[in-house]
Amino acid sequence: MHRPDELRRLAEDFLAGLSFAAELGRLEEALRYSLLGGGKRIRPVLCLATGEALGREAVDLLPAACSLELVHTFSLVHDDLPALDDDDLRRGQPSAHVRFGEDVAILAGDALLAEAFRLALGYASPLVARELAEATLGMIGGQYLDVTTDGDLDAAGLRRLHALKTGRLLRAAVTTATAVGGLSEQERAPWRSLGEDVGLLFQIVDDVLDATGTAEELGKTPGKDEAAGKVTYVSLHGLARARELADETRDRVHERLAELPGDTSVLAEIVDAVHDRRA
Amino acid sequence: MHRPDELRRLAEDFLAGLSFAAELGRLEEALRYSLLGGGKRIRPVLCLATGEALGREAVDLLPAACSLELVHTFSLVHDDLPALDDDDLRRGQPSAHVRFGEDVAILAGDALLAEAFRLALGYASPLVARELAEATLGMIGGQYLDVTTDGDLDAAGLRRLHALKTGRLLRAAVTTATAVGGLSEQERAPWRSLGEDVGLLFQIVDDVLDATGTAEELGKTPGKDEAAGKVTYVSLHGLARARELADETRDRVHERLAELPGDTSVLAEIVDAVHDRRA
Repeated sequence: MHRPDELRRLAEDFLAGLSFAAELGRLEEALRYSLLGGGKRIRPVLCLATGEALGREAVDLLPAACSLELVHTFSLVHDDLPALDDDDLRRGQPSAHVRFGEDVAILAGDALLAEAFRLALGYASPLVARELAEATLGMIGGQYLDVTTDGDLDAAGLRRLHALKTGRLLRAAVTTATAVGGLSEQERAPWRSLGEDVGLLFQIVDDVLDATGTAEELGKTPGKDEAAGKVTYVSLHGLARARELADETRDRVHERLAELPGDTSVLAEIVDAVHDRRA
Repeated sequence: MHRPDELRRLAEDFLAGLSFAAELGRLEEALRYSLLGGGKRIRPVLCLATGEALGREAVDLLPAACSLELVHTFSLVHDDLPALDDDDLRRGQPSAHVRFGEDVAILAGDALLAEAFRLALGYASPLVARELAEATLGMIGGQYLDVTTDGDLDAAGLRRLHALKTGRLLRAAVTTATAVGGLSEQERAPWRSLGEDVGLLFQIVDDVLDATGTAEELGKTPGKDEAAGKVTYVSLHGLARARELADETRDRVHERLAELPGDTSVLAEIVDAVHDRRA
């Protein structure tokens, strides 16, 4: 089994070596700019670690793992657009539309999504690509909620929003691995719950960091949620309680991991890293 | 075998009855607005007719056929955006971003693309979805060429642009049907060439109509290509020669059809309708 840092390097190398469709021509530059500009690679790492916990080789997981990162990057490129979150800074660099123009950024996002499916469709079975499609649609539904609700969410609404916007793709990091691993629908259920809780943990920590981090640490503009009047775990529960929620969620994930078959020690490390991250 | 009008009605009914992912919530309204606002349904009809020529039932073809229409609609919604073609009128109605706002239009386009893959992934084999991914990437590459070249194309460049932007999805209308039909790679080759020529014919006629049609006939703003200084078959060859090229392409398609196995009479009707259309 690989350690989290090794898994991240495997994902980075795979992403850097990806061949895009020749027909994209010079648009490829915009895809690579957004895809290779850093990032924690939490989704591919989580997918790879889940697959290894299930006894699969990382090489068999890499296309599924990296298809998730392409979908994630597609969502960042489109969410940063002026008509959506209007964010000029991403991973410490100019956003795609600042660097290449809005037209190219829209097309680059579209192409990243299509390339994600092309990658997931390399498997003989359509199961991985199906998980990817479901997760992408959930994520888009979450972003739609985000842009159409103005500070009028309660705790259940906020949780629903994040379960979709952030949670579905993180859950898919786990479920695509179980699809590659050939698990039955019944065997997948506890893994799916695990993926959901990792997504929740990720989002609570994100909200805490948005309220407390610096631009230098985050590589993006902090305090944007508060400035936009968005409901977050911090605005809803206060900073102290949001931190407690993060701790409680982390502890619940560890309990779930202890009950799952296989060696989940690397997954436990990843969960702690998600909890403790500074950016 | 069904006549073209019957195939179109089958496609319309299937599209109208499509269930979208529940997670999209009210975004579904924007998807339906763009998807069900008319249109010739040339891609689904071509796919269904190809499948029937190969001896398959329309019902087996409908998911593939309509996944193409979803990709086509996604491309219209995004291409109409202010940052791209900036078109306020589509199929005689306000474009999606005029009706719902730019943010919702971007997300609706994204969702249409993801729903297209979900639909194509309903087949046991990933072949249909693979054809869809390849075609989508080619189409995006064509749109990228379109927004980044300013009147500096020669005839070969123009043909390349349209082979990608319009041709790939029309070709996929034929190749997804051959995928559903279980044809071998070798058996598919002549069908692929057929699809390419239908795409070429479609685009030449489109350019002629843009130069000669009225907004009422077209359901969109005419003369936009000329106003934008875009190279078209008309600007490059003149109107008379563009019309001759359309005739020559139609004739070549009929020759191809005569050489293919199966009853291609409905396909021949469709080709004539593409050539003779007024909008």
